[in-house]
Amino acid sequence: MNKRIVMASHPEGWVTEANFRLETAPVPKPAEGEVLVKNHWLSLDPYMRGRMTKQKSYVKGVEVGDVMTGETAGEVVESRHPKFKAGDKVTAPSGWQLYWSGKGELLTKVDDTRAPLSYFLGCLGMPGRTAYFGMKDILQPEAGETVVVSAASGAVGSVVGQLAKEWGCRTVGIAGGKAKCDYVVQELGFDACVDYKAGKLLDDLRAACPKGVDAYFENVGGVILDTMLRLMNVKSRIAICGLISDYNAAEPYGVKMFRSILVNRIKVQGMIVFDWVERYPEANQALLALVTDGRFKYRESVVKGIENAPRGLIGLLKGENFGKQLVRLT
Amino acid sequence: MNKRIVMASHPEGWVTEANFRLETAPVPKPAEGEVLVKNHWLSLDPYMRGRMTKQKSYVKGVEVGDVMTGETAGEVVESRHPKFKAGDKVTAPSGWQLYWSGKGELLTKVDDTRAPLSYFLGCLGMPGRTAYFGMKDILQPEAGETVVVSAASGAVGSVVGQLAKEWGCRTVGIAGGKAKCDYVVQELGFDACVDYKAGKLLDDLRAACPKGVDAYFENVGGVILDTMLRLMNVKSRIAICGLISDYNAAEPYGVKMFRSILVNRIKVQGMIVFDWVERYPEANQALLALVTDGRFKYRESVVKGIENAPRGLIGLLKGENFGKQLVRLT
Repeated sequence: MNKRIVMASHPEGWVTEANFRLETAPVPKPAEGEVLVKNHWLSLDPYMRGRMTKQKSYVKGVEVGDVMTGETAGEVVESRHPKFKAGDKVTAPSGWQLYWSGKGELLTKVDDTRAPLSYFLGCLGMPGRTAYFGMKDILQPEAGETVVVSAASGAVGSVVGQLAKEWGCRTVGIAGGKAKCDYVVQELGFDACVDYKAGKLLDDLRAACPKGVDAYFENVGGVILDTMLRLMNVKSRIAICGLISDYNAAEPYGVKMFRSILVNRIKVQGMIVFDWVERYPEANQALLALVTDGRFKYRESVVKGIENAPRGLIGLLKGENFGKQLVRLT
Repeated sequence: MNKRIVMASHPEGWVTEANFRLETAPVPKPAEGEVLVKNHWLSLDPYMRGRMTKQKSYVKGVEVGDVMTGETAGEVVESRHPKFKAGDKVTAPSGWQLYWSGKGELLTKVDDTRAPLSYFLGCLGMPGRTAYFGMKDILQPEAGETVVVSAASGAVGSVVGQLAKEWGCRTVGIAGGKAKCDYVVQELGFDACVDYKAGKLLDDLRAACPKGVDAYFENVGGVILDTMLRLMNVKSRIAICGLISDYNAAEPYGVKMFRSILVNRIKVQGMIVFDWVERYPEANQALLALVTDGRFKYRESVVKGIENAPRGLIGLLKGENFGKQLVRLT
């Protein structure tokens, strides 16, 4: 039997377990041109909160009763598509379920002899590509510039910072709590990491960025964004990749330091990785080279079992994860 | 004798006449390499509010006792610089005073046989160039796109909108009051103009921009910016040229719809025209051609006498001007 999580209700404010329901259903049968995938890993990502809202977001939202949207990594068990055979490892737009059947064109074959399968949902998947294109096309930091990234220990942030180090930048993270900050500096090799929970964000950021900030990769928003706007240099750049602090808020945060964009001629750009879909191979190749060379550190936060996926997402939205959040399905 | 206005105190909140003081002084004597200019026109511009604050702005602020900063248009009365002779018409960084003497390199010679001298402080001067580079380099609208500009009847806004029409865009202004809106549509030729004082800004903007907004030129900020963020299309652009609604506020406005930048992948860029100084001739030539061809409409709001310059600036900051705000000095 297939197991899957559907959205039981739209959340109001914080997501709760009551917004989800576990269902069972027969394992689907692939039609001609389709492939049946057994999923090993489900990726949990902050964008999922947006899909649960009625409000307009990047793409169509999840409706009540729909399987929750999400990407998985797994194994082909039956193929009626010429490009796939049983045993192939793939990533798939399965949603939150153990089995998925659909058109082969929607699958991406991955080589799990070069990196663990789960990595293709993280540093070698959508989050890694997000970091890559945000850095390469929007922030474009030069060696010697100061790059800051929020949610620095997370799936996107850890790649952003390690790319910044590769490119010769002073690299500063923002994360919640001493354990994450220690990890960001000691394991990921950032030059500094500021704990936003320590209560003196502006002073700590000033100390960590003595020459101001040239490029900021934003995953969080809210007070962190407002504080960062006070540190941005003339002609600096900000990539807006996520605003997770707002996703559960009843009222959006009002950004007070907007004037810094004018005074410092900052370029602020929103980004969604889908806009670079034609260049995914470029990112995949660059990231895989860094991972296989052993120059990339990467950490995962795993919950076990599809029934615990809601708890995993709720924890992620609260910043309780430590590294890329995954659900182990097998 | 020279007459000049100095800053008597830093304003708290709204600027008042008490923040200024009229002084008299001898007419300065030009030294070798210097030029004495008699000013005919003083330009009043929103950026002046920023210079009066202790807060960091684009450039060094005015100190108490300093002559207020500002650009003038006038006539050379005595030259000790080889490039200038008595009778030449020039623009000068004089500040708020009747006479100025300084290095010839700081002057720009203008040809008042091709357009009225005062135009070189407006549509053919800094405001015109600001509009030109904001449109050409930041907003880059294509024919058929919708362009919106706030403070549409002002020195910058009127040029932005007329450039947008020249380039084949649907052009919508935002201005305060029926008289300004009528002027923007009937005289300047915009497709529509929304009165932000009419109390239904969002609905009126939606009606004026049925296909959403591709490019927004921001002079005002605050609620107008927040409302515009709700109308921006995917991959749209916003040039932040001014945030006049904030300049007198004790607390900056909190921008609530920041998330639209993410969801719609908007590019937001702050701009100061000084960053294009090497390309001023390009803008000057393009704008002069449009003015001399009779394809540009332009309106001035004039107060008479240096002693009334403070009143002129206060009115400008409240939106009481109608067109480019000038002080007639002669």
